[in-house]
Amino acid sequence: MVLVGEQAPDFEVQTTRGRIRLSELRGRWVLLLTHPSSFNPVCTTEMIALSQRIDDFRKSGVEVFSICPESLMSVISWVRDVEEKYGLKIMFPVAADPDKRTVSLYGAADARGSVARSVFLIDPEGVLRFTAQYPVETGRNVKELARVTRAVQTSVKSGLLAPANWEPGEPMIIPPPSTVEEADKRVRDGAERWYIQRKQV
Amino acid sequence: MVLVGEQAPDFEVQTTRGRIRLSELRGRWVLLLTHPSSFNPVCTTEMIALSQRIDDFRKSGVEVFSICPESLMSVISWVRDVEEKYGLKIMFPVAADPDKRTVSLYGAADARGSVARSVFLIDPEGVLRFTAQYPVETGRNVKELARVTRAVQTSVKSGLLAPANWEPGEPMIIPPPSTVEEADKRVRDGAERWYIQRKQV
Amino acid sequence: MVLVGEQAPDFEVQTTRGRIRLSELRGRWVLLLTHPSSFNPVCTTEMIALSQRIDDFRKSGVEVFSICPESLMSVISWVRDVEEKYGLKIMFPVAADPDKRTVSLYGAADARGSVARSVFLIDPEGVLRFTAQYPVETGRNVKELARVTRAVQTSVKSGLLAPANWEPGEPMIIPPPSTVEEADKRVRDGAERWYIQRKQV
Amino acid sequence: MVLVGEQAPDFEVQTTRGRIRLSELRGRWVLLLTHPSSFNPVCTTEMIALSQRIDDFRKSGVEVFSICPESLMSVISWVRDVEEKYGLKIMFPVAADPDKRTVSLYGAADARGSVARSVFLIDPEGVLRFTAQYPVETGRNVKELARVTRAVQTSVKSGLLAPANWEPGEPMIIPPPSTVEEADKRVRDGAERWYIQRKQV
Amino acid sequence: MVLVGEQAPDFEVQTTRGRIRLSELRGRWVLLLTHPSSFNPVCTTEMIALSQRIDDFRKSGVEVFSICPESLMSVISWVRDVEEKYGLKIMFPVAADPDKRTVSLYGAADARGSVARSVFLIDPEGVLRFTAQYPVETGRNVKELARVTRAVQTSVKSGLLAPANWEPGEPMIIPPPSTVEEADKRVRDGAERWYIQRKQV
Amino acid sequence: MVLVGEQAPDFEVQTTRGRIRLSELRGRWVLLLTHPSSFNPVCTTEMIALSQRIDDFRKSGVEVFSICPESLMSVISWVRDVEEKYGLKIMFPVAADPDKRTVSLYGAADARGSVARSVFLIDPEGVLRFTAQYPVETGRNVKELARVTRAVQTSVKSGLLAPANWEPGEPMIIPPPSTVEEADKRVRDGAERWYIQRKQV
Amino acid sequence: MVLVGEQAPDFEVQTTRGRIRLSELRGRWVLLLTHPSSFNPVCTTEMIALSQRIDDFRKSGVEVFSICPESLMSVISWVRDVEEKYGLKIMFPVAADPDKRTVSLYGAADARGSVARSVFLIDPEGVLRFTAQYPVETGRNVKELARVTRAVQTSVKSGLLAPANWEPGEPMIIPPPSTVEEADKRVRDGAERWYIQRKQV
Amino acid sequence: MVLVGEQAPDFEVQTTRGRIRLSELRGRWVLLLTHPSSFNPVCTTEMIALSQRIDDFRKSGVEVFSICPESLMSVISWVRDVEEKYGLKIMFPVAADPDKRTVSLYGAADARGSVARSVFLIDPEGVLRFTAQYPVETGRNVKELARVTRAVQTSVKSGLLAPANWEPGEPMIIPPPSTVEEADKRVRDGAERWYIQRKQV
Amino acid sequence: MVLVGEQAPDFEVQTTRGRIRLSELRGRWVLLLTHPSSFNPVCTTEMIALSQRIDDFRKSGVEVFSICPESLMSVISWVRDVEEKYGLKIMFPVAADPDKRTVSLYGAADARGSVARSVFLIDPEGVLRFTAQYPVETGRNVKELARVTRAVQTSVKSGLLAPANWEPGEPMIIPPPSTVEEADKRVRDGAERWYIQRKQV
Amino acid sequence: MVLVGEQAPDFEVQTTRGRIRLSELRGRWVLLLTHPSSFNPVCTTEMIALSQRIDDFRKSGVEVFSICPESLMSVISWVRDVEEKYGLKIMFPVAADPDKRTVSLYGAADARGSVARSVFLIDPEGVLRFTAQYPVETGRNVKELARVTRAVQTSVKSGLLAPANWEPGEPMIIPPPSTVEEADKRVRDGAERWYIQRKQV
Repeated sequence: MVLVGEQAPDFEVQTTRGRIRLSELRGRWVLLLTHPSSFNPVCTTEMIALSQRIDDFRKSGVEVFSICPESLMSVISWVRDVEEKYGLKIMFPVAADPDKRTVSLYGAADARGSVARSVFLIDPEGVLRFTAQYPVETGRNVKELARVTRAVQTSVKSGLLAPANWEPGEPMIIPPPSTVEEADKRVRDGAERWYIQRKQV
Repeated sequence: MVLVGEQAPDFEVQTTRGRIRLSELRGRWVLLLTHPSSFNPVCTTEMIALSQRIDDFRKSGVEVFSICPESLMSVISWVRDVEEKYGLKIMFPVAADPDKRTVSLYGAADARGSVARSVFLIDPEGVLRFTAQYPVETGRNVKELARVTRAVQTSVKSGLLAPANWEPGEPMIIPPPSTVEEADKRVRDGAERWYIQRKQV
Repeated sequence: MVLVGEQAPDFEVQTTRGRIRLSELRGRWVLLLTHPSSFNPVCTTEMIALSQRIDDFRKSGVEVFSICPESLMSVISWVRDVEEKYGLKIMFPVAADPDKRTVSLYGAADARGSVARSVFLIDPEGVLRFTAQYPVETGRNVKELARVTRAVQTSVKSGLLAPANWEPGEPMIIPPPSTVEEADKRVRDGAERWYIQRKQV
Repeated sequence: MVLVGEQAPDFEVQTTRGRIRLSELRGRWVLLLTHPSSFNPVCTTEMIALSQRIDDFRKSGVEVFSICPESLMSVISWVRDVEEKYGLKIMFPVAADPDKRTVSLYGAADARGSVARSVFLIDPEGVLRFTAQYPVETGRNVKELARVTRAVQTSVKSGLLAPANWEPGEPMIIPPPSTVEEADKRVRDGAERWYIQRKQV
Repeated sequence: MVLVGEQAPDFEVQTTRGRIRLSELRGRWVLLLTHPSSFNPVCTTEMIALSQRIDDFRKSGVEVFSICPESLMSVISWVRDVEEKYGLKIMFPVAADPDKRTVSLYGAADARGSVARSVFLIDPEGVLRFTAQYPVETGRNVKELARVTRAVQTSVKSGLLAPANWEPGEPMIIPPPSTVEEADKRVRDGAERWYIQRKQV
Repeated sequence: MVLVGEQAPDFEVQTTRGRIRLSELRGRWVLLLTHPSSFNPVCTTEMIALSQRIDDFRKSGVEVFSICPESLMSVISWVRDVEEKYGLKIMFPVAADPDKRTVSLYGAADARGSVARSVFLIDPEGVLRFTAQYPVETGRNVKELARVTRAVQTSVKSGLLAPANWEPGEPMIIPPPSTVEEADKRVRDGAERWYIQRKQV
Repeated sequence: MVLVGEQAPDFEVQTTRGRIRLSELRGRWVLLLTHPSSFNPVCTTEMIALSQRIDDFRKSGVEVFSICPESLMSVISWVRDVEEKYGLKIMFPVAADPDKRTVSLYGAADARGSVARSVFLIDPEGVLRFTAQYPVETGRNVKELARVTRAVQTSVKSGLLAPANWEPGEPMIIPPPSTVEEADKRVRDGAERWYIQRKQV
Repeated sequence: MVLVGEQAPDFEVQTTRGRIRLSELRGRWVLLLTHPSSFNPVCTTEMIALSQRIDDFRKSGVEVFSICPESLMSVISWVRDVEEKYGLKIMFPVAADPDKRTVSLYGAADARGSVARSVFLIDPEGVLRFTAQYPVETGRNVKELARVTRAVQTSVKSGLLAPANWEPGEPMIIPPPSTVEEADKRVRDGAERWYIQRKQV
Repeated sequence: MVLVGEQAPDFEVQTTRGRIRLSELRGRWVLLLTHPSSFNPVCTTEMIALSQRIDDFRKSGVEVFSICPESLMSVISWVRDVEEKYGLKIMFPVAADPDKRTVSLYGAADARGSVARSVFLIDPEGVLRFTAQYPVETGRNVKELARVTRAVQTSVKSGLLAPANWEPGEPMIIPPPSTVEEADKRVRDGAERWYIQRKQV
Repeated sequence: MVLVGEQAPDFEVQTTRGRIRLSELRGRWVLLLTHPSSFNPVCTTEMIALSQRIDDFRKSGVEVFSICPESLMSVISWVRDVEEKYGLKIMFPVAADPDKRTVSLYGAADARGSVARSVFLIDPEGVLRFTAQYPVETGRNVKELARVTRAVQTSVKSGLLAPANWEPGEPMIIPPPSTVEEADKRVRDGAERWYIQRKQV
């Protein structure tokens, strides 16, 4: 299992748009999703929803792709099926992981040994910043993935902390003091509390 | 690390509102959050935000509480400080876990060995249904926690699947067929695709 | 690796025509094939060729089915694609083995860890009688599979041995003597050689 | 057990026609058969049948020889007996493997620990390309061994794939595409299916 | 467990007055206390009592600080609470040891795994000279800590030994002889006993 | 090493006043001291000082005895020497522990492997309540041993806590609250602080 | 390796005259020989020489048979070849030991891992009495095997010892005395030496 | 246990005629015998018999000596006793092996752990060529030891094989052919059998 | 190695006067000696010296025998040689220990692995009371063995202690006191010293 | 346990006459004794007896000292007590071994784990030459210690062997012959026996 703050392990996969090696994406943010199988109905809705917002992610410097524990033949067949049926193009690569080597590396399994519906947000240094595991019965929320990605990016850039429910444009929080003296000074300076002081980014 | 679909390990903790044993909550949904420390500013905003929506969770049969890796004395002091300062009552229990026994059981650690900002959704059978790990710099989104909780609850109850971005009131998806014959029948019956057929809950 | 003469290990799989458990086929011969992936072009030709001769196998008391290391969704999609395109029905079950549990049990792997193009002939007692591993580049010969199956069935029934290139209707060989005395008697009785004596089945 | 695609382990044996070391045959194809014992009646028919087609194999650049788990004295005695009795010459070497060192290296055993009736096709790089294990009661089919050898040789040479039941002179199949874009192009170019396109060798 | 006479293991902690590394205090005496938790009532009285005599210790070249198994946030909060309530300044650093790494190094645990109420006196070479473990129900005696510190300092400096109940200004004891000859001489010289001879420091 | 709160290990020793087994003292408090050797000058002053206050300990239900890592012959010789020289009687037993079995059981060693100048206070249930290790150069303080013993006894009896520097007759502290509600009530009831409330014993 | 005086391990073999199990020969003496291979020229001379004296052995209650590390087919072929060529009958069974299970049990190997030219004399209780290992280049001496067998049989029966070079009819030696007293008596009684006294059987 | 064909392990012993190291005898044949004990009556007869033929062995380049598991004092005493009593000289060295180091190296033990009556024939390269283990009740045959030694020597020198019962002056056997072609040639050249061809040495 | 005060391990040996089992001598004292070898000159003088005083030992209830690491044949030969040469009878048994089993049990070895010149005095309960190891170059002193045996016997019987150089008839010492009170009483009663008080046996 | 003939392990001890390191005594003989405890009555008589003969030992180049498993304080006290009481000086050092490190090194323990009454004679090369273990109830014989020391010294110097009961001035024995030839010569030269020949030193 990869922990938040750890280096995300490197891997190379064949995708519907050619070979991808994670370490060659260093310098960009990466949002990685896993699918339980090809032709999965919930995955199909996720694939379409994500494809429709792919431009926003790309503008924020985020590479998005997903991984499916099937052969490349099966994945190509699925993508073509979706494109034909819904008259659209899937705008991001879907990788084939027939031996589950990559999904195992990331511990993306549920209790039955199947691949879970996982999300991994990896920063430009290759460090895992956020991860979630949804059950197979419940699709992911693309809006929340966008919000979390933005909050982490803003926090990393500004050195401030994002409070609960933060949305872009809202103030953030200055990191708390580390000595009694600094704490006293914050209070004297009129902070909300010695450990809470908000600031617009 | 607990996997989605596994039995959530039992534990007993002292909280600001008395002793809680997870197994005694069997029959209700449980939403469990972890804090990196007491007097943490982001945690404080989360504590307030969660407290304000606690009634909605409780109406849906969800018990909410959080765990803090400090002594009970420290946790009581923090809660009292927040209540005094913001003139409100924290409506859910905050547990003390001074030996990190419970947070270790759930693998709620980041790469530096500190406690991560984790969420665990546990169903009435005691099975983990959803989990996420946010970085220490980024607060959780109470609205998304409510949405995921509702989606999982509805899916479990109806036997249907929640598509991407599902919100209460939207149609869900019937589980896909398991033989070629059934697949053929779905198509003949006018399904969107042999593997996608939507239905209002 | 299963050896010729060993009990074939039991397994249960989901197929395009429902669940199959090997041990429930005891009393019938079983011819089992493995595919490297769904939508594989050579496999597609084998699937059609085998489907066309399925009646002959069934008349000889032989159950035929194949196993594919993909999800059931992927396998159903493939079979439906073949049926639609070529306007025919695939007359035998194709099993999904997404975790490669069954193919691993039978050692059906090539040097790259992929699933090999294997054949396993299992007798009514569940004992492996014949096995072959073709490379991924070369399709299997349905005629030879039929010949071998018939030769093994005839030999088991008559207690005689099938000589090289044996075809149904040709004479077989009586098992050789086990003492010098018997050997001398065979020669006296006019056998071709003390260790070779042919006989019509 | 040697897997298809693996390097065939090297060995040196004494044969009825002198010493053979596998690695000294690099650059030629090798077809290797194993016998359960000398003076075995089925083996005797196989030895004669193979000897009669030895020229065809040799013309295609294939070295044929067999291995018998007996002393060289026993093997010479057997070959001489066959030659005398049937008035012919055994045109290929039969090796003695009294300690079963070589047959063990290739896993050519049946469930009783006896030597199985195995076939191994090794390419000019020393890589195993095809293998089969017949039961002791059933002789091998020299015609099918010739067909498989030819199919593998043609496939290796042309880079194409042999479909089911392929016979020399029949068209082969072009390897399938590896991206959605290539797949789309195949269809536009009129392929039978996006993953099946035939071609005369 | 550190033994009297052993090198005290090095450590680095964050305190309410900044970072402290033990080895950087080499050359000064160190008196180290541990607290079971922040906001502990007995600890609070000890913290005040020690703070009031801190000048005496400092004059004798003794650095005093304590360690609390909580986050720095919790410790700062506690110290500020005491200072506000009692209108005084805590004159020595209180360290945060949230992972109990340092208290474990010194074996400062009681039978329930909680942190004990321990004292460690470390000399200018970094060697442990005195240690005591009080139960959680009983506060330490600052007067006795001062007396012991002074006795050990005087003994180390003069090479003499402090008798029972020694108070500053009282005579000490000369180390006993190590041969029979020396012993005889002591007696001849009028010592109280061959092994007891007192001397004013 | 025995921890505060643990059961003190049982032992049996020969003393200058006959055999003692710790477990036969259950029901009484025990104050146990160790000596580095017989004829040690500091030990001799401690032996005399302790002997003079032995009545006070005995009145409070405390059995006092010490252990010396020498043969019984050596210990008897030492006690007789002290009694003769100082014209007094040693009023408590001194045990011989020639194999250091008992002192090892209690971990009473310094860094050179010699026996340390340790104290162990054991309650009537046989549980260790207090322990200290003085260096070989510094005699113990009989007055502080009496104070600690009294503080622990009073605390155990009343269920209250002894603050820093507590002396008999001074008020003690009520254990702190364990919920936010109780804490609020203490403050309303006029406690010094929500976690500090004093009470006369 | 079986030692002289140990129980000879049991085994069952197929021979040219049917199945033999060693333990079913209990009550008779057994002389067991091993051959390096069938069609070995030295073995052939031994087989003939032994066959010619087989009546003498049988009269003395000795069962003779040999073991060859080849298949039964090979052994039968050899025996028939010898019988045909030399116009005689091989009067004892020759066993096939194709897996070298029995020869390994008796450690009948030379340094190259081949089967040695060994002899084993087993008494009616199944105990090994004599063993020899000749090199592959040197045939055994049937006369000496007969002499040794007779010497051991006579010694076992009479309780006397066979001197060097003993031949039937010659005197043997009485076992030596076991006390000084007995030794003295032997000398007084005119023995050749106190430890050598001969006697006609 | 040393196997025929293996290097005989080196050793050094004290004998009745001085120190012997096996490796210093390289270049000569060595016949080594072991005795169960000194003053053993059968050994005494063997010692005399061997001594009488020692010249023949020596002429053939064979060094003879024996080993006895006793002290050198005991062995000298025995040899002197035999020499005195029988009025002769023991013409070869008898070694003392009081710790049984050398006899253990050669595995010369019987089932009771006593030293067996073993023979070892070692060639000029130090390789074991022949070995036998007689029971303690039966003396060795010096004539057969001479015959075997001569047969092995002749065989090694001529490259021919000694048939059963071979005596000096009799023809030997040419090693058998190793290919079918050579075998055919032997028959054409009039050999007794394709695998038996005799020749005068 | 057997320690003084331990049970002497049991054993059974063949001696020049028949079989001896140590445990069958229970109830009598045993004096056991070991010899490095038979025909050892120093041992021979010891054997004679001991034999001459054997009656004294026997009268005091002491069984004497020795053990020699040689065969019984060798030991008998040695004893007879001594008796013949010196015209006397060896009055005690000499045991043969050819496998050194018994001498190993008693650790009677010197640094070169040879048997040492050891003495073991065993009491009627089978407990070792005294042991000595002389070097191979120095004979034992029978007079001292008699003195030690007598001292130990007398001490065991009377409960008194033998002082240095004790000879039969001299006073012994009363065991010392075990409390200070008893010690004081001894002095009052006029003992030589509180720990030394002599008494005639 | 140190064996006769082994290097005596080095050690350093504090004695009543200063520090002794065994290896610094190389070049002199050392006689080492152990005491069970100080103030032991038997040890006291031994100490006096040995002190009285210390000049004789010293003249023969023998250093004598003893070791007592107590603190140096205890040992000094004992020696002073003996000197005062008996009006004499203890002429050799008595070492303190409070951790039993040295006595453990020499295995000087009895079955109860106490220190035994052992003797060790160490030669000028540091090799153990003689050792004895007396029971705690029996004092050592200073006369025999002197005799053994003298016998070993004389034997080492002359290369001759001391017979049983040897006293200074008596003849010794020449080492026995090592070949039959030498033995014969001894007899011819008139030796008492071939293995016994006496000689005045």
